Parts: sequence; structure tokens; C-alpha cells
Amino acid sequence: SKGNAPQVAPPVVHYYMNNLTNTRTPIENEETVLILTPLARFYQGYWDNLLKLSYPHNLISLGFIIPKNKDGNAAYAALQAQVTKTQTGPKNKRFAAITILRQDTEIPLQSQEEEVRHKMENQKPRRSAMAKARNSLLFTTMGPTTSWVLWMDADIVETPSTLIQDLAEYDVPILVPNCFQRYYNNDKKAMDIRVYDFNNWIDSPTAKEMAAKMGKDDILLEGYKDMPTYRSLMVYMYDTSADPRAKVKLDGVGGATMLVKAEVHRDGAMFPPFPFYHLIETEGFAKMANRLNWESFGLPNYLVYHYNE
Amino acid sequence: SKGNAPQVAPPVVHYYMNNLTNTRTPIENEETVLILTPLARFYQGYWDNLLKLSYPHNLISLGFIIPKNKDGNAAYAALQAQVTKTQTGPKNKRFAAITILRQDTEIPLQSQEEEVRHKMENQKPRRSAMAKARNSLLFTTMGPTTSWVLWMDADIVETPSTLIQDLAEYDVPILVPNCFQRYYNNDKKAMDIRVYDFNNWIDSPTAKEMAAKMGKDDILLEGYKDMPTYRSLMVYMYDTSADPRAKVKLDGVGGATMLVKAEVHRDGAMFPPFPFYHLIETEGFAKMANRLNWESFGLPNYLVYHYNE
Ligand SMILES: Nc1nc2c(ncn2[C@@H]2O[C@H](COP(=O)(O)OP(=O)(O)O)[C@@H](O)[C@H]2O)c(=O)[nH]1
Ligand SMILES: Nc1nc2c(ncn2[C@@H]2O[C@H](COP(=O)(O)OP(=O)(O)O)[C@@H](O)[C@H]2O)c(=O)[nH]1
Ligand SMILES: [Mn+2]
Ligand SMILES: [Mn+2]
Repeated sequence: SKGNAPQVAPPVVHYYMNNLTNTRTPIENEETVLILTPLARFYQGYWDNLLKLSYPHNLISLGFIIPKNKDGNAAYAALQAQVTKTQTGPKNKRFAAITILRQDTEIPLQSQEEEVRHKMENQKPRRSAMAKARNSLLFTTMGPTTSWVLWMDADIVETPSTLIQDLAEYDVPILVPNCFQRYYNNDKKAMDIRVYDFNNWIDSPTAKEMAAKMGKDDILLEGYKDMPTYRSLMVYMYDTSADPRAKVKLDGVGGATMLVKAEVHRDGAMFPPFPFYHLIETEGFAKMANRLNWESFGLPNYLVYHYNE
Repeated sequence: SKGNAPQVAPPVVHYYMNNLTNTRTPIENEETVLILTPLARFYQGYWDNLLKLSYPHNLISLGFIIPKNKDGNAAYAALQAQVTKTQTGPKNKRFAAITILRQDTEIPLQSQEEEVRHKMENQKPRRSAMAKARNSLLFTTMGPTTSWVLWMDADIVETPSTLIQDLAEYDVPILVPNCFQRYYNNDKKAMDIRVYDFNNWIDSPTAKEMAAKMGKDDILLEGYKDMPTYRSLMVYMYDTSADPRAKVKLDGVGGATMLVKAEVHRDGAMFPPFPFYHLIETEGFAKMANRLNWESFGLPNYLVYHYNE
């Protein structure tokens, strides 16, 4: 029997009556969470942080998609080793299910170095490929019992252990924490934090005008000097003196860490690999969700941390 | 334990290496097919036709989505009875898995009568709701082993038994047969056939001009006298004297019967519930697939039959 053949073929019938909920109290309601991670490189910090999540692991399924190249092979091996360790370790740390997909589509960039990755002319093919990878992962792993989807990039190495409960409590369709980075501040001679993810933003009249004048397949990007959008970026709204629970409505979101009610995806919200209102991937996702009447929000004072390369 | 709780939570790890194929010879390659049906009414003819499909049933999974109203309850009961009968009957007739979802979104029309259903002003809310139902079904049931998705409406009561093999042999991303209807021709005093599904078409300059002049959320519809599009409709290309295997490239498709390579959906192709290039639902799907570089085709001389109300 080939890899293609169904894993199980008993005369079993499953009925799912869609009495799924997604509530402010997901643990009491035994709501299942699907954590989805596109993974080009494996970071131990990511896995350790995942293991520390206090949401019951038997309610969490994991899904990964890994590129089919040399780096991907290494990432796959490292992930597999940790998966085996966890799933044969203490019962209360084991996850309900783990799915690992290898990407079969083209990988547009040969290098995963930050400098190459973030070059402006590389953004469209790169983010289009990322969008397809996210879609493959989503369409393949979401099941009838999924209540929530938590998108979590492989280089997110630190979050509060109550991340899922904290985000679910806001009871909104799409919610993103603020993504920062720890680094050594040479001036202060001490560890410090700095902004990282520019994809969480509130739209601006300038950006709207730019979009209106663009060619139909051109895209707007955020965080590039040559393309000032004057959007309000959530990274700059971080304010230790303000309400730690503050919540803002967003027009664009990043996928580094993002909690989504499963029904948002079920309605059809995916990551557009083509320019959609001049946006692609996670930023296009927020716009598409919006077209489906779902709103996106961000938490400027709730931080998660990106790996520092 | 609630309905929400995961069905199985052993420390099992699944690896799917995406060595899926979709080939001209799907049976030899043990390729799995997911048949998806939005179902508002149950027709025995639909089920009987399904059972006659000669593609190995152990490679076929079924997925249904049924509205949560009175008609839906009746349809659900009728379906369940047939499912139980089939899945406890002869082993070679049993399907690999069956998933039945109840729709939790709004149902815009109270009546399923053809006259009401096909009224032009009812099309946008009706087809938008249908699009969401199709997306829910798709996102929820597609798994890592799915090679093909066959969309089949609940009122398709007759197809060749070799439908899946026949369509797969063309080896194209999206393929639709021509959807007709049997009826009693009073003039001829005999059974006859007539055209049914107008959603399979090749675009026209007129339709493109109409779209260009429309408000941004307006949609083009096909088969309405008040909105002549001059598109080339596949129903009118049926020609018994021509090549029975003829294949034409299409710009819009219907979902009555449609075979889709799973990778098309995995890239993100869904059924837009919002106007997408002035198209929605299955017609918008063809356009979205096109934006993802996948082409749609139709078989003018390969017929399937819609129930005659
Ligand atoms: N499957 C897959 N994952 C990728 C690919 N490129 C990046 N990733 C992962 O996608 C996520 C976001 O990419 P990253 O390069 O970190 O984006 P950035 O932090 O915004 O520069 C990370 O988890 C990466 O490991 C790819 O080609 N395929
Ligand atoms: N889940 C669901 N299915 C529906 C609904 N309305 C129609 N259907 C099904 O969707 C398919 C297409 O709808 P139908 O009314 O036959 O479309 P038409 O033949 O183009 O008029 C059929 O299988 C219907 O049974 C609905 O509100 N919810
Ligand atoms: Mn990153
Ligand atoms: Mn019909």
C-alpha cells in the first residue's frame, strides 16, 4: 500500500453536529485548538515555549509545513526528534495529534538570511509562496472539531504560558499580540526589547491613495523606507503606562502569533497568494476576513518575542 | 465529555509526507477522492447513483453539509438512514469515511422551490450563503491524504458509473461535465433531455464591459434575461455529432459536478462569498483558481443529469 492510501478504512461513520463553541472559557468547554506553524528552521526556544503552554495539551493539535529543501530536511529532523520525545514523555505534556507536511510547491528564495528575506523586491514571490504554504497547512489540518486556530511562527520563542486562554478571553474573531524582539543594548549594557513585526497596522489615507493609484497586481508593503504608508503600526503603540489589556482594531495583521476563531477560516478566509486589495498573505487575510464581516484586533501591550538572529 | 472534545487523544503522531499524486490512473495509484455535497434536500436518485460509482469505495470519503432548518432535518434523517444501510452492507460498497456537518450560518431563503431559488434578486444572498457552506465543508473535511475533490450536488441523480476515472483521465486541475435534465417532451410524446446548468461558460467582451461599469460590490449572473452577457454557455455546445471527448477551456464553472485536484484547493482556491471580480460562489471559484494559475475546463459532450422538480 502506497503513502496515498487512506490510513484507516473501516466502515465507520462520523457525524459532527457542529455544536462547536468558541468562548471566553475554552478550557471548561473543552474547546480544541489547532496550532499551525510554517517552519523553515527549527528553534529549540519555539518548542520549549510550546511545551510550557498551560492550555491542556490533550485539547491541542499541532500542524507544521516544512519546505522540501536542504534546510527543510534539517528542520524536519530536529522537529521529529522533539516530537518523539514529547509524545513518549509525560502524558500531560503530550499533544492530541501532530501533522507534518512537506511543501511541494516552489521555494522562491534560496536563502533564509534575514537580509535577503526582507529585501523589498523579494517580498511578492516570497510572501505569495508563504501564503500558499499557510493555505495548504490550513486546508489539510482543520477538522470538524477545531474551535480555534492559533498561528505561531517557528521563530516565536517566548510567549506567556497562558497565551491561549489570555487571547480567547477577548472573544474576538481574530486577535494578535504585539511581536517584539529581545536584544543586547550596547548603550545600556543590558538586555532590552525592540519592535519586530510591522504587519499589524491600522490603515492610513496615504496607503489608501497609494493603493488606488497602483497597477492592479501591485502590492503595498509595510516597513520599507522607499514606500512610506503612514499607517499606524501596532509596534509603536506599546505603552507600559497604559492599560495592559488595551485592544485596538486592526486592518492588517501578521501571522507570527494570531488566534483565529475556526469559523472565520471555515467561511473561507485564507491567505491570498495573489494581490487582494493590493495586499497578500497575512495582511490580505485580514482584508479577506473583513470582506466576510469578521474584524481583526491587536493587543499593543501584550508581548510575544521573535528570535533574534 | 462534550461534542467539542477530540474524538481520539492518544499520543499518536502522524507524518504525512505529501507524496500525494493525482494522475490519469488514480485507481492504480490508490488516490483518494473526497466527494463533497451541500445538501438541502435528499434525493434517493443521488444516493443510488453514488453507490453505482465504480471507483473503489474504500478510496472514497464523503462529506455533507446540511442546513439547520426543518427541511434540513428531514434531509439529514433520510441521509442517515441510507448511510447506515450502506456502511453496514456489502464491504465493497462501503465508503472509507463519511462526515456530516450541520450549517450554523444563516439561511437566507425560506423556500427551496425552484421558482424562488432562481429569482435574480435572491441570487446574491443565496449564493453567498452557499459559498460559505461549501467553504465550511471543504476546510473541515479535506485531509492530508486527499488527492481529488469531487463536488457533487445533492440533486445530481445520474452520471456514468465511471465518472471519477473518466474525469481524472483528462489530467486537468478543474473539470466539469455538462449538466442536463431529463424531462417528458409533450410534443415528441417521449422522454427527452434539455439544458440545465448555465454556470459553465466562456467569458465574453460584453460581460467584461458590464463588469467594468458595475459598482464594486455588484455581481454578474448567468442565465437571466434582464442581464444578457453573451457569454458562451457550455450547455449550448453539446453536440452529438462531435468528438465525445471534446474539452473546452472555461472561465466560469458550476459546482453541480466538478472534479478538482486537491492541490488547487490547498493553494487557497475557495468559493468567494463576496463579489470577487464581480463573481461569487462557484463562478468566483474558477476566477480565484485562475489567479492561482490553475485552469478550468469543461466537457460539452459528457453529460450528467439534474433532478427534474
Ligand atoms: N513552509 C515554509 N515555511 C517558511 C518558509 N519561509 C519561511 N517560513 C516560516 O514561516 C514563518 C515566517 O517566516 P519568516 O521568514 O520568519 O518571516 P519574518 O520573521 O517576517 O521575516 C517562520 O515560521 C518561518 O520558519 C517557506 O518557504 N516554507
Ligand atoms: N448546505 C446547504 N446546501 C444547500 C442550500 N441550498 C441549496 N443547497 C444544496 O446545494 C446544491 C445546489 O443548490 P440548488 O438549489 O440545487 O442549486 P441550483 O440547482 O443551481 O438551483 C444542492 O445540492 C442543494 O441541495 C443551503 O442553504 N445549505
Ligand atoms: Mn520570523
Ligand atoms: Mn440543483
